[in-house]
Amino acid sequence: MTDPFVVVGGDAAGLSAASKFLRDRADDRDVVVFERGAWVSYAHCGTPYYVKGEVESLLDMTTLSPDDVEGRGIDLRRDHEVIALHPDRDVVRVAGPDGEFDQPFSDLLVATGARAVTGGFDLSPAGAFTLHGMDDAAALRALVTPPNDPLEDGDLPDAVDRTRVERYANHPVPDSVAVVGGGYVGVEMAEAFTARGVDVHLFQRPDRLLVPFGEAAADVVADHLEAAGVHLHVGGEVTELLTADGRVSAVAHDGHPDDPSPLPVDAVLVGVGIAPAVAPVADAEVDCGGSGAIAVDRYGRTSRDRVYAAGDCAEARHVVTGEQAWVPLGLTANRAGRAVGATVAGTPTQTGGVAGTAAVKAFDAEAARSGLVDDEAARAAGFEPVSTTITAGSRSGYYPGAAETTVTLTADQGTGRLLGGSIAGTDRAAVRIDTVATALEAGMTVDELERADLAYAPPFSPVWDPVLVAAKVLAGER
Amino acid sequence: MTDPFVVVGGDAAGLSAASKFLRDRADDRDVVVFERGAWVSYAHCGTPYYVKGEVESLLDMTTLSPDDVEGRGIDLRRDHEVIALHPDRDVVRVAGPDGEFDQPFSDLLVATGARAVTGGFDLSPAGAFTLHGMDDAAALRALVTPPNDPLEDGDLPDAVDRTRVERYANHPVPDSVAVVGGGYVGVEMAEAFTARGVDVHLFQRPDRLLVPFGEAAADVVADHLEAAGVHLHVGGEVTELLTADGRVSAVAHDGHPDDPSPLPVDAVLVGVGIAPAVAPVADAEVDCGGSGAIAVDRYGRTSRDRVYAAGDCAEARHVVTGEQAWVPLGLTANRAGRAVGATVAGTPTQTGGVAGTAAVKAFDAEAARSGLVDDEAARAAGFEPVSTTITAGSRSGYYPGAAETTVTLTADQGTGRLLGGSIAGTDRAAVRIDTVATALEAGMTVDELERADLAYAPPFSPVWDPVLVAAKVLAGER
Repeated sequence: MTDPFVVVGGDAAGLSAASKFLRDRADDRDVVVFERGAWVSYAHCGTPYYVKGEVESLLDMTTLSPDDVEGRGIDLRRDHEVIALHPDRDVVRVAGPDGEFDQPFSDLLVATGARAVTGGFDLSPAGAFTLHGMDDAAALRALVTPPNDPLEDGDLPDAVDRTRVERYANHPVPDSVAVVGGGYVGVEMAEAFTARGVDVHLFQRPDRLLVPFGEAAADVVADHLEAAGVHLHVGGEVTELLTADGRVSAVAHDGHPDDPSPLPVDAVLVGVGIAPAVAPVADAEVDCGGSGAIAVDRYGRTSRDRVYAAGDCAEARHVVTGEQAWVPLGLTANRAGRAVGATVAGTPTQTGGVAGTAAVKAFDAEAARSGLVDDEAARAAGFEPVSTTITAGSRSGYYPGAAETTVTLTADQGTGRLLGGSIAGTDRAAVRIDTVATALEAGMTVDELERADLAYAPPFSPVWDPVLVAAKVLAGER
Repeated sequence: MTDPFVVVGGDAAGLSAASKFLRDRADDRDVVVFERGAWVSYAHCGTPYYVKGEVESLLDMTTLSPDDVEGRGIDLRRDHEVIALHPDRDVVRVAGPDGEFDQPFSDLLVATGARAVTGGFDLSPAGAFTLHGMDDAAALRALVTPPNDPLEDGDLPDAVDRTRVERYANHPVPDSVAVVGGGYVGVEMAEAFTARGVDVHLFQRPDRLLVPFGEAAADVVADHLEAAGVHLHVGGEVTELLTADGRVSAVAHDGHPDDPSPLPVDAVLVGVGIAPAVAPVADAEVDCGGSGAIAVDRYGRTSRDRVYAAGDCAEARHVVTGEQAWVPLGLTANRAGRAVGATVAGTPTQTGGVAGTAAVKAFDAEAARSGLVDDEAARAAGFEPVSTTITAGSRSGYYPGAAETTVTLTADQGTGRLLGGSIAGTDRAAVRIDTVATALEAGMTVDELERADLAYAPPFSPVWDPVLVAAKVLAGER
């Protein structure tokens, strides 16, 4: 019997690959998925909205249950950690509930995802969190839920880490929290905590929030956070978590040079980023790229024969620079996994590039970005960037609901090629980034984008859509 | 002194050209704009929302007042109709309030727009309307406004045709209206009349509404119209307007073969389309295309030297077929006018192509289209079309507000090139068409579109945006 297609990791990339492989396979090979945890196929990006209470149950955020996965014919082994790869022998070493064993493979996909980095903080005291995955979300929801109304999740699934949830079951809702980091997680959790009545102090070491979104979009988001009562400490670094009786009691920080005393808080959420989870490949001579994530070619193939990588643990080709980059995002993971599944099944399929397209909500504000928004990043990639920022209406000015939409576009001075852009506003601003993302995928110049026949109808867009206004101005400035 | 740049028509294309010319001109030529009516620079597309009452004043829909236009240095002559062109002598014949005269030009732009067609109906009886321009809008608003509250427009401008408004000032709000034609105007006015408490019968001779939007989008719109109480007579033709005492009293129609009696209504709105207004060029040997609109090259030049045409009276290059086509839309007019202004000022500038991108609102429903949506149109242009229609969520399924979004995409079977698409739904469906429009401008294949890195964030889009879902399915079906 032929050895199976083995997948390490039971989330977006891994299960997309396994499912696609089974649909398309030309042989009788099985697919085995090892997942070291209890959760499979869930939506990381939804967790802030679960903590906020907009999503009722953890199970709402799972795309497939373990039964669904097995119903597809996938041999799913939860609580099985792949602890070593031996590509020379075509086996992986697995630690499961009943001990360790070698699992042979014909093809192997490493889809181990990413892990939250802690910024060097000790997160063992009560009230200290990161948010990366369902158990963090469950614990945070328990934290912000009054003791007599545990979780509001009538359906708390078996997979959840109950010890962590119970740690906060009788914990009063914090009066205040320090959010460390002003990226997606920080911004989204600032909204979630505020909605729960928690006073939020958001600390961001760089001089603006959401650095990859560019200055104009970050300013829009900052304004909305402040208007909603979030205390912003931009340019402020949390240097230490202070505890009392084993619980978070304050943060030391350099945000107020004239008042260096620690800020009392009841909890801390550290959202300073994630890192690729590459531990299983560490000793297997599978090359990693400069980003630290696993290096792959256009088909998701690593440096080792028959070993693929996809999702948050792997690099991908950036559509603007053409270089490999690490841009861990949900669509990229799903698409790359699906492509690897098709390739392993017999139809070589490219994983597609990434433009780093992303969107974030901050109360009423929406912000989105794609490509190279930062002039510095563009220069580093060998371009000579020229940028413009404009503000235009989201609808015809006379139509109810028209709102300011801020667009930044960046192009290469020499060739006119569009390099990236960001959009912020309150009225359908985020979804407009898809215009920019599509133009980047096509390699359009800003002059070509200016000529695109975008929709005009008073309830939806003004005659000159905000993206066209920006393209027109930028084309004129070149 | 050099003869001026003369523009015929004071709306989107004409004033865009005049303004751009004055900003960029390298010489001291003046620009003269002849407008045969009293209105300049107004938003045709906003008029249904004025009738509905969402737009308060007619003046809200004007982009520039006559004073603004003159403030830009444009010599604006309202109530001046250009009645003949003499390109051989470089003059136009103008009929103004003080008689006729010859106006010499150095360059000439014909931007005479379009006119509503009446479908052969006599629209002289009281209660019979088309909607094309501000005076129609003012009369219709007077019709749907109770006699004691004339127009609700505190600011009724001087330019308005007061005779027409006063005709309906004491007219009771109709109980029912027949809307003839199920295109943009028909659909938007069905919403406007309904909002005013008028019972609407919408007659559409073809077998579906909004023919250029394709079947799936039309079905979504039809469902929403019916849910809002609009009586649809699809496949039903109005054959005659019946009057009593000089006022509309009923329509004869073939919509109910088993009940051929006329349908009593208090008013009729005929919205069966528009035609290019090319009368001034009729005897001037300026070529028209097969569409009946003025033929132009990529710079808006007609068959006569130094005579340009732009806007609703002119053809434009269709980005998918590469052929000249007549697609009268607001952005096209603005862009082409601006390009001609730049060209006449000394910088040859292409007018840009059209994809026929359009969007329409019908109560809560939004529909949009771009390119060749209809397989028949695609076949006529030499393509071998393959289409798919999918329904996907507008946001992550677990996120509040997620709504069904229906996407149709059409590609060429042989090359995979994207030919067009339509989108309908209730949650930011229309603005997503810009992804399709951008892909069409870039000439992308459906496989390339499938790989675009569109935004994913639970409040805004699911992992696979509806357009990507459609592209994925269509790429798989090819």
